[in-house]
This record gives sequence, C-alpha cells and structure tokens, in this order.
Amino acid sequence: MKTVGIIVEYNPLHNGHVYHFEQSKLVSGTDTVVAVMSGSFLQRGEPAIVCKWARTEMALRMGADLVLELPVAYSTQPAEWFAYGAISALEATGVVDAFCFGSESGDLELLRSAARRLHEADNREAPDHADMTAGSLTGLAPSFQDAIRSRLKSGLSYPSAYAAAAGRLLAEESEEDWLAKPNNTLGLHYLLALERLHGTMRPYTIQRQKADYNQTDISDERIASATALRKLLSGEADTEAVRPFVPAYTRRILQREWEAGRAPVSWASFYAPLFARLAVTSPSEMAEFGEVTEGLEHRIARCLHEVQPSAGEPFEQLMQALKTKRYTRTKLQRMMTRILLNHRKIDLSPDLLRGGVPYLRVLGFTAAGQALLKAMRKTASVPVVTKAASFRHPFLDMDIRSATVHASAYRQPSKAELFRDYYEPPVRLADEV
Amino acid sequence: MKTVGIIVEYNPLHNGHVYHFEQSKLVSGTDTVVAVMSGSFLQRGEPAIVCKWARTEMALRMGADLVLELPVAYSTQPAEWFAYGAISALEATGVVDAFCFGSESGDLELLRSAARRLHEADNREAPDHADMTAGSLTGLAPSFQDAIRSRLKSGLSYPSAYAAAAGRLLAEESEEDWLAKPNNTLGLHYLLALERLHGTMRPYTIQRQKADYNQTDISDERIASATALRKLLSGEADTEAVRPFVPAYTRRILQREWEAGRAPVSWASFYAPLFARLAVTSPSEMAEFGEVTEGLEHRIARCLHEVQPSAGEPFEQLMQALKTKRYTRTKLQRMMTRILLNHRKIDLSPDLLRGGVPYLRVLGFTAAGQALLKAMRKTASVPVVTKAASFRHPFLDMDIRSATVHASAYRQPSKAELFRDYYEPPVRLADEV
Repeated sequence: MKTVGIIVEYNPLHNGHVYHFEQSKLVSGTDTVVAVMSGSFLQRGEPAIVCKWARTEMALRMGADLVLELPVAYSTQPAEWFAYGAISALEATGVVDAFCFGSESGDLELLRSAARRLHEADNREAPDHADMTAGSLTGLAPSFQDAIRSRLKSGLSYPSAYAAAAGRLLAEESEEDWLAKPNNTLGLHYLLALERLHGTMRPYTIQRQKADYNQTDISDERIASATALRKLLSGEADTEAVRPFVPAYTRRILQREWEAGRAPVSWASFYAPLFARLAVTSPSEMAEFGEVTEGLEHRIARCLHEVQPSAGEPFEQLMQALKTKRYTRTKLQRMMTRILLNHRKIDLSPDLLRGGVPYLRVLGFTAAGQALLKAMRKTASVPVVTKAASFRHPFLDMDIRSATVHASAYRQPSKAELFRDYYEPPVRLADEV
Repeated sequence: MKTVGIIVEYNPLHNGHVYHFEQSKLVSGTDTVVAVMSGSFLQRGEPAIVCKWARTEMALRMGADLVLELPVAYSTQPAEWFAYGAISALEATGVVDAFCFGSESGDLELLRSAARRLHEADNREAPDHADMTAGSLTGLAPSFQDAIRSRLKSGLSYPSAYAAAAGRLLAEESEEDWLAKPNNTLGLHYLLALERLHGTMRPYTIQRQKADYNQTDISDERIASATALRKLLSGEADTEAVRPFVPAYTRRILQREWEAGRAPVSWASFYAPLFARLAVTSPSEMAEFGEVTEGLEHRIARCLHEVQPSAGEPFEQLMQALKTKRYTRTKLQRMMTRILLNHRKIDLSPDLLRGGVPYLRVLGFTAAGQALLKAMRKTASVPVVTKAASFRHPFLDMDIRSATVHASAYRQPSKAELFRDYYEPPVRLADEV
C-alpha cells in the first residue's frame, strides 16, 4: 500500500477538489490518501465557513483515508510557515510516501530547482539557523530577506516583494512571472520545506487551470472556486445555490450545518468580539500580536475610527480603511485572526515553529485510515492525538480555543458545540452511513 | 454661594434620587450641586443601562449644576477605592464646601467616629503607606487586613468579612449589625477617604429608608430602586413601565435612547465579546486582570464549560456557575468588567490609585455650573478636562475605551456614537430646552 499526502482547506469541498484528489492518486500511483487540513481558521486569515468536523466528513466521503488537523499556529500563516507546518505533519506520520500539490506552472523541476537554490542560500548564510532571532519571521537566508525588505520599502506588498526577490535570486530563468502566481509560491514553499526538513516524500504537482475555471474536461457549469462558492452562500438561508458546483455529500453536509445554526461562519460573525478587543487594546499591546508589524498598531487605532456600523458590514469597512498597496487583504485578515485569537508573536516565534508540528491531531479516518493509524504507532515521530482532552501542548490549546471562538458564532451554540474538541471523537466514515 | 457634592450613578435617575438631591441641598444649606457620576461601567460591575451623556442630562434637568465623570479606574471598584476616587474628585475641585450621602443609619457621628478609628489604625501601622505593595488592594492597616483575611478563609464573602473585622476593631459599640448595610459601608468609606485625603469638605448624611421603599412622605406607588427599574425595562420595547417611578425628563430621555437603538445596555449585550475573550485567555494571563484573585482564573476556565447559550441567557448562566458563598455577584461582575475592558492589576495598582483622580472630566453643566468651572480655573488641584481629545492620561484612555465598548452594544452604532468622547462637548442645559 502506497500513500500520498495532500494539503487542503475544503472551504467548502467542491468539484475542483475532487478532480485534484483523483489526479493526486493517479500521478503518484497510490491507493490511500492522508489529508492535512486547516482547522477553524485558514491560510487567508478567515474563519472556515463550516466547522472542521463537517469539512473532515466531506474529505472522508470523497475518499480521503485520514484527515489530520494543521495546527492554527501554522494554518493562519504566510506561505512559508504554512507550507513548513503542513510538510512537517506529512513527514511526521512516517507513512506518507509522496505528496501532491496543484500549481499554475505544473512544472515540478522548475519549482524544485528554485527550492533547492533558495535552500542552498539559506545553508550558506545560516547553516544552523544560528542567526535567526524572534524578530526574523522567516527561515530564509539573510541576504534574501534583505532583498525582500528593500522591495517592501519601495512599497510592494509582501507577496510581490517575495516574488521579485526570488526571481532575482533564481536569475529569472523563466520569461514569465511564474513566481507571482499564488499556487506556484505555495508549491515552491512545500518543496523548500521538504529540503529544510530533509524530507523523504516524493513530490508531485498537477497543473491547475486558472483559478479552476475553464477546465476543458469539466465544464464551467460544474466548477467554481471556493471563494466564489462562499460568496454564493453568504447570507443565504439554504445551500441550494452551490448545488451545481459541489458533490452531493458536500451539499447535504452544508445543508445540515445550516439547519443546525452552525453555518455560515464568516468574519462578519466576529465583528463584535474583534471590535471590543481592538477598542480596549493600546497600540503597544497591539504590537505584541502576530502579524502586527511595521507600526500597523497605530494604523489599526486610526482606522477603527473610520468604521460606521450603521452604514454597512463593519469588518468590510475596517478592511477597506486598513488596505494599502503595501498590505494585502490576506495579510490584514491574518493579523485580525491573531488579534481575535490572542496569538502573540511570542507564542509563534520562529524557534517554536521551526520544530515542525509537535503532534498529529486526528480529525477523521476510514477503515484504510485506521490501518494507517495502527502503522503510525510505530512510525510517527510525534504523538498521535485522537482525544484532544488527553494531550497537552500550547499549540493544541490554541487549536481548541480557536474552535471555541469559531463555534461562538453559531446561532445558539450548545456547550457540546463550544467545546466540541473535548467531546468529539474523530469522524469515522463507517459511523456516518 | 455654597456648594454641596454628591456621588451618583443615576442608572436611571428616579424619584428616590430626586428626594436625596433635595434633602442634600436642604441639610447642607447650599445652593449649587456638583455630582460625581460613574461613566459607562458602574460600581456593581455592570454597564450603565444608558450612556453617560443621557444620565448627565437627567442630572442637570433635576437641578445638578456640574456633573463630573468618576474615572472607570475608580467607578468599578469595591467600596474603598470607589469612595476614595469620588471624594478625591470633589476635593480636587476646590469649590465644594460639603458633601452628602445616604445611609441606612443616618447617624453621622457613629460613622465618623468609626472612620477616624480605622484611619488611626492605618496611621499607627503604616504612616506613609510605606508597606503597601501592588499586592495589597486596600489602604487599610495591615492588622485590619489580616482580620479580614482570616474571616475570608472561614468562607465569608468580602463585604461580610469586612463588616465583621471592622465591627471587631470598633469594639461593636452598636448592638445592631450596622456595618453590614451597604450604604453604611459606602458612607464609612467616604468618611475614611476624607480622613486619608485630609479633606476640608463638611460631611452630611441623610437616612435612607430601606432600599428606598416604605418612605412615608412618598408613597410606594412612586418609589422603586434603580435595580427594580432596570428589571422593569429589561427586554422592553419602550419605557412605559417605569413611568410612575421616575421624573418626566428621565422617561423622555430613556424613551429617546430606546428609539435611537442606544438602550437598554446590559451584561447580556456583551456576552459575545466577553466569551471570546475568556475563551482565548490562558489562566495565567487571566490572573493578570483586576479582581481575578485567589485562583479565580481556574474557576472561570472551568465554569465557562458549563455555559449553554442554547438554554438561556449565557452571562446569567456564567454568573450562576461562578457564584459561591464566598464571592458576591458584585465581585464577579466587577471581575468580568475588568476582563472585558482589558484592565490589568498593574493598570490599577494602589500606587496609581492612591494619588486620587488625576483630572476632572466635565460631562455637563448649567449656567451656575459654568460659574463653578470658571472658579475652578483657580481652585482645582488637577486639570479640568472639557475636551477628552485634548488631554492624555492612562485613566482617561480607559474611560474613553470603556465608552466605546459600551456603545458597541448599540443596535447599529454610528462612529460618532462609538467615539463620542472625542466628538461630544459637555452637555449644557441651556442647549437642551
């Protein structure tokens, strides 16, 4: 039995994800699939539209065999740490032979050679990460960081500055601006993490069509991005609108969550607690939170005064007020996530993150997944956690608390929903028929 | 012109308050009245039912000439610091000749002699407050604190332990348990503060009828406590229910606030931000907040798991879960206020509080009040603040932030309402006709 790893969010799981899932098994020639999935808060700095258990069930119904939760310490991070956490989780299982990711380029060797050269630059300049301090957000070579910083100073956003600096380092062997594409960037970081972790998994990539649109083998009538689907669902009383774009089980699970008052969850759900927190936090205390960099604490304090809740959705107004060319929406949302969840820089220091995931939290499994779990008793390099209540780690506390905050947005949450991590065993597909 | 000071909350202003107001002028033989009023959060650890500007207007319409805001650093405190802050504010004006408070006993000499003996004990044991550390919440003599502590250990609540220890110190010259009555305790602390501050105001007390009920000169049909009135108003779409118990202007102002979506504000309005904050705060961080004493941080974490928002009002459930014989509802609510408002012990240390109010924030005035303000340019011992935006002090920041949090509970607050402290000049009665 060969196993492939995939890194997912399924917010919500749609037909494009099914395509990627089938292709991942096909190109890697594997039978079983381990999915590392973000929990309650996601890479773009947003709460998940439905809880992690519902999304786990979607993944299992599609055919994933084991779903592991990417700790929120990594899941709501820029590409470098997100990728590092996810790859470290797959490696830590000891049972994953390969991993597969989507990219705009589809050219593994291009990405891999870029990752190797970035890693060599790291090693040349900081062989043991010896010069990395808590102030350094990345594990990148200092000269490369300098190159990014100088581009930031010229007003570029971080992703643009990164792409420009990396393009320069890599001597721009490609004519087109391939590094500026988000899934190429993420893929590059998966491969960079693999180098850094001396990983043994074999990487594969599948070429993504532009934002999953215009695929020739699947008609437009069946494919839409997760962002587009969340927009369709926003403010809706039921989930009818997404029917053409998602598998039947996604629709059924979403509808169940809607009817139970557990969805949809969005930033609009958290404005009251976020606003109260922002209002009572001094700029100097604000600067202690993750992602509050470069004096953004003062900008937040000023922009808070621009919000007019009587004139529309207040979180959206806050984002509009905060936005500049320099700060992407994603960066600002990640910052708000850290503030809402009380995640300080000191809780997320490079020293803490560099160890990789310190546990593997099991969200769900099939019969084949159960066999994998059994094998992992011998192979896993970190504890495998099936009961959150019986394991303690600061990162796990953060995961549990973030799920509680997520659930606090439900219509009238029960205590079992608010503290579901303590009550809920992993989702088992056999139980769900 | 002689001036009397009163210490008020007016939550809301009712017929019993009018009686106290008239009596205060009468017994002190004064013409003008300065009211020191709590702002957005009150002594019992509750948000005010309507904002401080609306309550200022009530006070001015009744006849108060100048309304000053008691900083939230003092307003949401046990009796000792609440009284100390309020008396320091009246003294700091330099224009108040007398102050008058209600008490169950009505016996000024009994209270005054008790206050003097407590103050002598302070002086004997800690003449310069030299041994007071940040851990000591009160300015009381160490031996008296020990006496309170030993009674706390036997399971008494703080007010009961205080009354028992003070009764002992004062050799129980009274047969009845007069110190256990809340307004006697508060009165004792006003007089103790006067001693400590070497105040020059002449004190007066007016005997309160039991909870303002059964007064002979005002029939029961017109008198109810503020607590009873808030209960009548809770969840009501209009303010009709309180009509018999309040002056016409109170009713009109309340109705205006109701119709504008700015009232009623209660703890139920803040459950979402409070819960989110409690959920993401570790016990050790929780212990840094004001009033989180004696391991209550662990009790909060446990009790949070008892809350079932689907089964009723969640703040009430949390209070029920937290409550023991030892902790009064008031103590627990003050603790929640400190957590909601992000007030840490270090922000409210005895060293900071002992200086008395560091500014006099003017909330409103009449023509006579304006004359007082003019006189205060020469007499006031601290800055007189009429524009919050043009003065900076950590306590004033706390006042402004607490008003922002209070306003965030409005139906759909405008930014002018959220940050009203920056926009709103003092209420002037002449403008309000």
